[in-house]
Amino acid sequence: MRSVSILGVGITPFGARPESIVALGARACRAALEDAGLPPGRVEAFFLGNFAGQAFAGQNHLAPLVAHAAGLGPVPSTRVEGACASGGLAMRQGVVAVASGEADFVLVAGVEKMTGASAEEAAGVLAAAGDCRAEARVGATFPALFALIARRHMHQYGTTREALAAVAVKNHAHGLLNPNAHLQREVTRAQVLDARPVAEPLGLYDCSPISDGAAAVLLCPSERAGDFGQRPVRVLASAQAADAPALADKRDITRFEATSRAAERAFRQAGLEPPDIDLAEVHDCFTIAEIVALEDLGFYPKGEGGRGALAGETALGGAMPVNTSGGLKAKGHPVGATGLAQIHELVLQLRGRAGPRQVPAAEVGLAHNLGGSGATCAVHILASAG
Amino acid sequence: MRSVSILGVGITPFGARPESIVALGARACRAALEDAGLPPGRVEAFFLGNFAGQAFAGQNHLAPLVAHAAGLGPVPSTRVEGACASGGLAMRQGVVAVASGEADFVLVAGVEKMTGASAEEAAGVLAAAGDCRAEARVGATFPALFALIARRHMHQYGTTREALAAVAVKNHAHGLLNPNAHLQREVTRAQVLDARPVAEPLGLYDCSPISDGAAAVLLCPSERAGDFGQRPVRVLASAQAADAPALADKRDITRFEATSRAAERAFRQAGLEPPDIDLAEVHDCFTIAEIVALEDLGFYPKGEGGRGALAGETALGGAMPVNTSGGLKAKGHPVGATGLAQIHELVLQLRGRAGPRQVPAAEVGLAHNLGGSGATCAVHILASAG
Repeated sequence: MRSVSILGVGITPFGARPESIVALGARACRAALEDAGLPPGRVEAFFLGNFAGQAFAGQNHLAPLVAHAAGLGPVPSTRVEGACASGGLAMRQGVVAVASGEADFVLVAGVEKMTGASAEEAAGVLAAAGDCRAEARVGATFPALFALIARRHMHQYGTTREALAAVAVKNHAHGLLNPNAHLQREVTRAQVLDARPVAEPLGLYDCSPISDGAAAVLLCPSERAGDFGQRPVRVLASAQAADAPALADKRDITRFEATSRAAERAFRQAGLEPPDIDLAEVHDCFTIAEIVALEDLGFYPKGEGGRGALAGETALGGAMPVNTSGGLKAKGHPVGATGLAQIHELVLQLRGRAGPRQVPAAEVGLAHNLGGSGATCAVHILASAG
Repeated sequence: MRSVSILGVGITPFGARPESIVALGARACRAALEDAGLPPGRVEAFFLGNFAGQAFAGQNHLAPLVAHAAGLGPVPSTRVEGACASGGLAMRQGVVAVASGEADFVLVAGVEKMTGASAEEAAGVLAAAGDCRAEARVGATFPALFALIARRHMHQYGTTREALAAVAVKNHAHGLLNPNAHLQREVTRAQVLDARPVAEPLGLYDCSPISDGAAAVLLCPSERAGDFGQRPVRVLASAQAADAPALADKRDITRFEATSRAAERAFRQAGLEPPDIDLAEVHDCFTIAEIVALEDLGFYPKGEGGRGALAGETALGGAMPVNTSGGLKAKGHPVGATGLAQIHELVLQLRGRAGPRQVPAAEVGLAHNLGGSGATCAVHILASAG
């Protein structure tokens, strides 16, 4: 298999956007091509991460529509779906296409347009990412499922409400530095703790917002990456795993085995260990999810992930900054776009182009994208090409 | 890239099924594993073709759910969507995974459960496979789009209403021989011509039915295919192409350029030409679609595809039998399953196990799976391993 590099990245502002879902996706695609300096006609294959285009925006079969709008021509165009990990899975299919020699220039995008739905409608659409017959049917939408996980984590390891709040405070502070973030405002720990409850112990500021947005990544073989203007970023690992979809089928709801399995494979592929990672974008759909992810990825022992934000270790300036983009929490979570927005942030950081949120001397970054309540996980490790 | 073979195939009966969408998918998976003689724990990756699980059956994120129900364990599980070509695209991702060395044993399935919807609801869900802003918004659902194509084909090439009817008569006659077909009954040309109009010139018998069903295929490297009981079938080609999604954006609505492009690539990969094909399963969502496909694939000059069924050339016993399974027309068209049901039929034929519908001495078969009104196309060529 060939080594794969990232030649260009593109993103739209996240938030309530006026464009159609197709126009959003095409905009991110064009931005990635422009960043790479590659004309659209040279793209050989296109993968699109999207979770629920039909339910949210009335349009299915989105891959050829976005490809057509982006001027890619008649290249094989494939939509990939794995709930909130749709973007990460699309990235992985793109990496395999280049690594295998199937294609040289592969564009991968992710898109979701969600803000046309009411909060209640959105919760219903999102609930279809879980095991509906076991969970949504009895009212267990995602805030409820992650509230169960938070309660159990608090009970089992003594994690505090303050530790959850610290994740929100940190990611909002990061998001304030990201001009594409949906929520560009600071919140205080008191505001998080006093916010309207959504599913206790989770309050409004423990939940990622409903957003529109798109992100895209252009891949090529590393041996050709030097021919273009941008400083390329290498894909050291691309791994994926699954797990039982329903919480009730898991042995321990304080851990996502899909994450630990995907992370183990990714670290093995890269020949690295958790301490080698300079920064990470992890799937903080809820504050508790960031804490669980940091443990499952091997950055903290199980039960101690809350320390990251509480002690400032995962903030900008800390030992290993997490979610410098603002994370899903503040950047926003247009579901299909999220996995590629994570890659976008890592690429900016590894190029040294992240502006006021730049992590000094960032050389290796990890992206963790979770689908449902842990049924799907994609982990990517990227490195600056020096 | 490694040569890829098919080790096992499985299918459920098509029609109105009592099982849940997850149970249907899992049933086809287990049948393919059993056919191959491979325990589920040896599967290394899973791809699922599904078009609209959420809209039709209230469940998205289906790949890990079906994988879990089929006992596959935590293997990477990815849903692939390309409208009515979802199954063909999933097949192609599976072939790339094995060919590249990413995995040895890869299971690919397709599933759809549609009969819970009314005919009107189903037309609405299916319309989201087209360019909704250009077509569905003005009432152009798929029967209307294919009626336009039929009218134009009749106008441009003198194709007759009888030629369309002959496709329906032939495929119903084939479906009568397939115990898994949704519609196991003969129709006469008079019945087809006198049937209730759906979108003129297309009547009820020119349209494939709304069906539930699933099909699955187990892939492995050809070099390992001999270790198992079944006679393996080789994948000689796996190709995909796209085109402008809206009919209004096509240069000529009597041809699908996605089909001709995918076919050209597939024949090049296989080192074969149309006359080398012994039988084909083509995407006859409407009778006119079979005629257009036979032309775009290179089996007939443009405008002459109607001759196939009219002259008996594409019937069992003819020079190149087409849709021996009954096709989408009579076998049924559970959208996500269709591409894999086509592969299932070819494998039975190439193994010499197709019973009363066996094509004598069948050695090379082609499957053609179309998405939307030609925005996506997948073409596979299979050969008996001798």
